[in-house]
Amino acid sequence: MRKRVAILGSTGSIGRQALDVVGRYRDRFDVVGLAAGKNLALLAEQVALFEPQVSASAADGQAGLYRVAVESGADIVLAATDGAVAFDAVFAAVDAGIDIAIANKELVVAAGELLFAHAKRSGAKLLPVDSEHSAIFQCLEGQARDRVAGIVLTASGGPFWNRTSEEMQNVTVADALRHPTWNMGVKNTIDSASLMNKGLEVIEASRFFAMPAEQIHVLVHRTSVAHGFAIFTDGNVLGQFAPPDMRLPIGYALAYPDRLPDRNEVDALVALGGAAEASATALGFERPDLERFPCLGLAYDALRAGGTVPAALSAANEIVVAAFVDGRIRFGDIAPCIAAALREVPAEPLTLDAVRRADAAAREAAIAATGAVRQLR
Amino acid sequence: MRKRVAILGSTGSIGRQALDVVGRYRDRFDVVGLAAGKNLALLAEQVALFEPQVSASAADGQAGLYRVAVESGADIVLAATDGAVAFDAVFAAVDAGIDIAIANKELVVAAGELLFAHAKRSGAKLLPVDSEHSAIFQCLEGQARDRVAGIVLTASGGPFWNRTSEEMQNVTVADALRHPTWNMGVKNTIDSASLMNKGLEVIEASRFFAMPAEQIHVLVHRTSVAHGFAIFTDGNVLGQFAPPDMRLPIGYALAYPDRLPDRNEVDALVALGGAAEASATALGFERPDLERFPCLGLAYDALRAGGTVPAALSAANEIVVAAFVDGRIRFGDIAPCIAAALREVPAEPLTLDAVRRADAAAREAAIAATGAVRQLR
Repeated sequence: MRKRVAILGSTGSIGRQALDVVGRYRDRFDVVGLAAGKNLALLAEQVALFEPQVSASAADGQAGLYRVAVESGADIVLAATDGAVAFDAVFAAVDAGIDIAIANKELVVAAGELLFAHAKRSGAKLLPVDSEHSAIFQCLEGQARDRVAGIVLTASGGPFWNRTSEEMQNVTVADALRHPTWNMGVKNTIDSASLMNKGLEVIEASRFFAMPAEQIHVLVHRTSVAHGFAIFTDGNVLGQFAPPDMRLPIGYALAYPDRLPDRNEVDALVALGGAAEASATALGFERPDLERFPCLGLAYDALRAGGTVPAALSAANEIVVAAFVDGRIRFGDIAPCIAAALREVPAEPLTLDAVRRADAAAREAAIAATGAVRQLR
Repeated sequence: MRKRVAILGSTGSIGRQALDVVGRYRDRFDVVGLAAGKNLALLAEQVALFEPQVSASAADGQAGLYRVAVESGADIVLAATDGAVAFDAVFAAVDAGIDIAIANKELVVAAGELLFAHAKRSGAKLLPVDSEHSAIFQCLEGQARDRVAGIVLTASGGPFWNRTSEEMQNVTVADALRHPTWNMGVKNTIDSASLMNKGLEVIEASRFFAMPAEQIHVLVHRTSVAHGFAIFTDGNVLGQFAPPDMRLPIGYALAYPDRLPDRNEVDALVALGGAAEASATALGFERPDLERFPCLGLAYDALRAGGTVPAALSAANEIVVAAFVDGRIRFGDIAPCIAAALREVPAEPLTLDAVRRADAAAREAAIAATGAVRQLR
């Protein structure tokens, strides 16, 4: 079923990026309402492209916001206006049981407790659009609240992370605008430099996740690849990672509880620093080189071959490693010996008996291979 | 309800750590069966301490393993023997619908497809105990399989990560035994040095998560703090972090679907490098300093104060930041001006009207504070 989306603040940065996401998935989303401020030219373009049932601009005042939020037939409203202008419209939508994707920080900072109380009564879902809160939302999904010991919001640290208190007194606006990772407006950039931005996010997190200040931690992480973590009572920690692209948390909130289907996996791996070309990265992950570590390649080959081959691999490896530990072969002989042994063992379809045969045959072949190791070199 | 636990391989490293976990949560777990090999003295100690209904040693052969796994009345069996010795007992337990926590790698590498097919028929749950597979299991929990684009197993890289292919040919057993992070047996250490260990885990992951080789990635991560990641089709990545302590994945598997309740949160934060004293860490996270970033402290204070204080904070910040952008105050004045403004605004219980009053009063007070900034210094 297509999801009906209304956007409050459609010509702002978040609104435009949301329409970019929605435009890529026209089969999944219908735009039923658009409300903008004073950028009438862009609003007209958006209306022509997405053909919403209802649209409104600042000229329509509160009535326009109300119609887009409540009367457009939306399943979900993206609240992406700044300040308090849309508070009444959003509360009305929540009271009508309409889900809200929230990019309007002030709404959660100033009136979050009320908003969540209204949502609890009506059954409306409130979904975060901030990357940090989206991260933590994803980490907490399906977890029992009383097993969450705390959460961590990451912060880029901003342009002044390496300055002393004294140096910071007189930094300029231009200094502050050199923000390391994200592109954002001037106000947000100053808030990011002073960490007030992160402070407001701590308050938001407290509302979204019903958690006291003591359980909400801030950690600075300069590369903005990790966005948030959840710490569980059993000592496990889950974290979320993504490129610094607001379309991801926007898409997550709009598609929830589903996920969008076809983002290129490579993007995500690059975010983790796993791309072959990014050999040393922010988080310190590197791809192993199969030439230096041929055993890893043998395991992938065995997995692809299937049947009893993994059983033979495991058994041959045991024998060959024992030969290395006993000093009978060199470390560099381990992979060639295993490969030689595997060539002698016929692959069979998987049964427990076939596994036992493969195990025995591989051990025998591995003993022969380690004995004949000089021929293998 | 207390969970009844049986352990195959109770005197081995995993078995002993499992009993350590179970012993800390005697109110949650009953030990109903213990099977060991030849360490009869330790088995006798364990039996005296945990009073299982059934115990067995190598002298009892397959019949002993079967009794402990199937006839002890266990809700969950921890399969922690090496090699193939317990295959039949584990398959019998699975066929009887008993959940299995699997630390027996060969079982999954050699016969994983069969085992999962049997579990599907009987309804038994198969839970990973390897830290990497536990990590990915946690990341995938509650996620739709067709929205998972791939998974990443992390590897420590072992002692030879920085050596060339040529240098590696002749490394010694002693070289290989200098493993950077985990304590493990000789065989596992050599497998870790050759990355065969990781290769076998790739095969295991394919069985646990029903995923082809192409979707299973290996990334080297020297500090062994991150254990695994799941990459979703929408570009989001979830990862799991924990100290290198096998009791965590063991406890997770035994308690599943619950989590153990009272692990000290600090341990987990230390794992993330978030402890105050660990200012620069493996993953590059640092705690912000509230003296240099007083705005973050103001936000925490506002959160603790509650009511309309967060609304006043947000409004005052807006005015004060505008004064900085206009060149009327210094960067170092931002926090004192906000603090001064907040002192002028009475805190009220939260209603939408009270939020509007606090917003207006805070703006007015902030304008006054930025005007009087020289007195504040």
